Amino acid sequence: MSPPPAYQELCSHLKKIAILQSTSALLEWDQQTKLPEGAGAYRSAQMTYFAGEAHRLRTDKRLGQWINELSTAETANDPHSVVGCTIAHVKKDYDRQVKLPARLVEELASACSQGHQIWVEARRDNDFAKFAPALKTIIKLKQEQADAVGYADCRYDALLDEFEPGAKTAEVAEILEALRQELVPLVESIKASQQKTPVEILHRQFPIEAQKNFVMDASAQIGFDYQRGRLDVTHHPFCTEMGPNDCRITTRYDQNFFSSAFFGTLHEAGHGIYEQGLPSDQYGLPSGQYCSLGIHESQSRLWENLVGRSMSFWQHFFPAAVEHFPGALSDVSLDQFYAAINHVAPSLIRVEADEATYNLHIIIRFQLEQDLIEGRLSVDDLPEAWNAKYQQSLGVVPDTNSDGVLQDVHWSAGLIGYFPTYSLGNLYASQLFSAAGDQLGDLHSQFAEGSFTPLKDWLNANVHQFGKRYSSNALCEKITGNPLSQSHLISHLREKLSPIYNL
Amino acid sequence: MSPPPAYQELCSHLKKIAILQSTSALLEWDQQTKLPEGAGAYRSAQMTYFAGEAHRLRTDKRLGQWINELSTAETANDPHSVVGCTIAHVKKDYDRQVKLPARLVEELASACSQGHQIWVEARRDNDFAKFAPALKTIIKLKQEQADAVGYADCRYDALLDEFEPGAKTAEVAEILEALRQELVPLVESIKASQQKTPVEILHRQFPIEAQKNFVMDASAQIGFDYQRGRLDVTHHPFCTEMGPNDCRITTRYDQNFFSSAFFGTLHEAGHGIYEQGLPSDQYGLPSGQYCSLGIHESQSRLWENLVGRSMSFWQHFFPAAVEHFPGALSDVSLDQFYAAINHVAPSLIRVEADEATYNLHIIIRFQLEQDLIEGRLSVDDLPEAWNAKYQQSLGVVPDTNSDGVLQDVHWSAGLIGYFPTYSLGNLYASQLFSAAGDQLGDLHSQFAEGSFTPLKDWLNANVHQFGKRYSSNALCEKITGNPLSQSHLISHLREKLSPIYNL
Repeated sequence: MSPPPAYQELCSHLKKIAILQSTSALLEWDQQTKLPEGAGAYRSAQMTYFAGEAHRLRTDKRLGQWINELSTAETANDPHSVVGCTIAHVKKDYDRQVKLPARLVEELASACSQGHQIWVEARRDNDFAKFAPALKTIIKLKQEQADAVGYADCRYDALLDEFEPGAKTAEVAEILEALRQELVPLVESIKASQQKTPVEILHRQFPIEAQKNFVMDASAQIGFDYQRGRLDVTHHPFCTEMGPNDCRITTRYDQNFFSSAFFGTLHEAGHGIYEQGLPSDQYGLPSGQYCSLGIHESQSRLWENLVGRSMSFWQHFFPAAVEHFPGALSDVSLDQFYAAINHVAPSLIRVEADEATYNLHIIIRFQLEQDLIEGRLSVDDLPEAWNAKYQQSLGVVPDTNSDGVLQDVHWSAGLIGYFPTYSLGNLYASQLFSAAGDQLGDLHSQFAEGSFTPLKDWLNANVHQFGKRYSSNALCEKITGNPLSQSHLISHLREKLSPIYNL
Repeated sequence: MSPPPAYQELCSHLKKIAILQSTSALLEWDQQTKLPEGAGAYRSAQMTYFAGEAHRLRTDKRLGQWINELSTAETANDPHSVVGCTIAHVKKDYDRQVKLPARLVEELASACSQGHQIWVEARRDNDFAKFAPALKTIIKLKQEQADAVGYADCRYDALLDEFEPGAKTAEVAEILEALRQELVPLVESIKASQQKTPVEILHRQFPIEAQKNFVMDASAQIGFDYQRGRLDVTHHPFCTEMGPNDCRITTRYDQNFFSSAFFGTLHEAGHGIYEQGLPSDQYGLPSGQYCSLGIHESQSRLWENLVGRSMSFWQHFFPAAVEHFPGALSDVSLDQFYAAINHVAPSLIRVEADEATYNLHIIIRFQLEQDLIEGRLSVDDLPEAWNAKYQQSLGVVPDTNSDGVLQDVHWSAGLIGYFPTYSLGNLYASQLFSAAGDQLGDLHSQFAEGSFTPLKDWLNANVHQFGKRYSSNALCEKITGNPLSQSHLISHLREKLSPIYNL
């Protein structure tokens, strides 16, 4: 049966919101990639205006009326149908939005836009004190946001739910703790190993133009569609979409380090392949939007690590790498290269961390931001707390705040509750990849032949096409038959790293 | 005395409109410079939405109430004051806007966005028939627009007024005819001259990176502020602003032709210097907006031709040109280079036409678009009419429609009534430049020393700061003491070209 007329009105309203949000995404992308230095203040005013307009539409009283009318409709009964998913998610979003005063939404948008600009300067100048007042304002506003939205157990729950719908702080803490308990001895055994990886070959000269050509080719081969996307340069790489056929990824090049741009771009391309795989005819509806940040991250990590750092991937790509970088790689064997890109060692910069230690970076941030939001830690004490945790978990301490507490964009943009989804993504990635292998046969023989389409099509069919029609937990159970577990990631790391490090 | 409270409400409303329009400018700039190929349809939907929203605000009934209330206020009496100018222009715009149905505004925005994309393909494929249906739709909608707005003498008046407020078709036709009558014998005498300019030196190898560096330096030296603007590449160069400190210009590079990017960029930088000189605290108000397209074009033409093609400009810049392009210019003298960049000959492409024949290109388009709008010419007959007029006025006929009737972006974007403002710009430029010389002393000795700031400051003070507070005619009389005349342009061309061509 066809949905009632109120549903058409609701969809048309959601598509207006999508226009405002996709335009805000362009304003933001442009700010990070193209905006003239002197133009920040007005850009901030533009973004504030659209945040207010989007809030106005998301709290439009007609939404409440439509939802009331539709929630009794037969089509609303199946939450996994397009219509049922739309109604359920609009109701949840509406209930949340009406609790937020327009004043708070606009203040947050303004504080985050300004905060971002101040963070850029503070990081450049290694000047945490410059950033501290902006961060205090953001924390205060996020606390107000959590209080306005409400929560069962702790303020952080209210913020986490925005990025990983339905997830609870206590549950996430538990699974990350289980992960940590298996990870620490693994990393310890690698540190103790006599076997060294020839990581210095990745720090030779890699001309930027050749890096760009190589990574654009590789990202296109795994399935990122450049007819419906583009790649640009920013300090902090990201993926954004501003329309059903306009997904933009960014990277940063370091001519003395191969991995930064190459694996960073595969990562963002993985996000982009997800966005490009969402049903474009449902653009603006929940069923046309990503499931959760954890699932989003699973797609980037899957292509970056499980595919991009595998031996089979490089059986296919290594000859092309040598052609692109003859000066750096012509005396390097595939085995040496493979060991180098899978080098594991505690380090300072999250986005350059290896697959094994990465989650320790996340757990630090997850704990610190909980402490900030729950009022257990002040912004002024944050750099010291950051450095203490790095010492404790990774055994390294940054020389500068720019390489420490100022390294990530997230807090300056008000993204609090976002970090744990990176580790959830790593866990979902391993569990999904394992299921794909069970269903598609030997993926690695396919990769060795340059065949990435079967995996991409499987992800399109099993993950992407559903948008928000399943929660991340439900999707994981539907596909893999089991709830999320740390075992797949740990097995993957043990199997890969044991031969490299003679464990 | 301070303006009444209704004025504050009006200004706040105008600033909302400015946010929508500056965002539309970003959507448009991005479409032309960065948009992925597959993303056109949704971009079109975004632009249509914002055109509708801007129309809604520009026809808000409160505008009529505010204007009624304010038009009796004492501060409204002086149309040259910020307040008086605001009230007068809002009233004119409001009266025009309320006559336009929202349906027509949205259809026009959609037809022009789609028309632009079709034009890109039609031009690429040299396929006028592909573009014809889109152009027919645009012409039909522009006729509807003219009829809805109303006019005294002819439909074209209603369209021209949008670009050159207050100008009348008959008057513009008269002054362009006077110009043509003096121009034709001048061009004839140049064609008859035995003296040849060494134009081939401009077609040597000019590496694109060096062109970019050189023209960015030159445009910065004349006063374009790259802290508040940027330069990108598009097929058809343009200048746009998306905020009081965000003016973006574009160019196209041809490694076998120096003039295209260099003079094209000086031209767009001239537009940009005007935008950057408007009072930024009045952004969104008429007094913070450009006077007319004729005056806008006068600023680009002044820097491109009267400054950029002068001997004194190159006395300063030629040594740097030789350094940037040693392969092309090390055996060239300043005199040869000067003669080459002032080469005059009938040609096919308007944007590459020389200073003397340029206006003949404009007069052809001005006549053809009048004929289309008045229903005297059908779109199907347009290519033939185009070619006939080129044969008649310039003695050349394009081999392909891509080099003929498809060469310009304007009609595909609904810009009809725009072309004559280019020639008005040439006339205003010469008359203003002549007045600047009378007031500032020998400008050319200043240029020869690399001093462009006195002229830029003079333009800031005499032209830019007033925004729309004077009409183009009134501004011309205020500054030069006389109404617009063709004599300054003709004198300038005779004085420059006579020695070069031994006339």
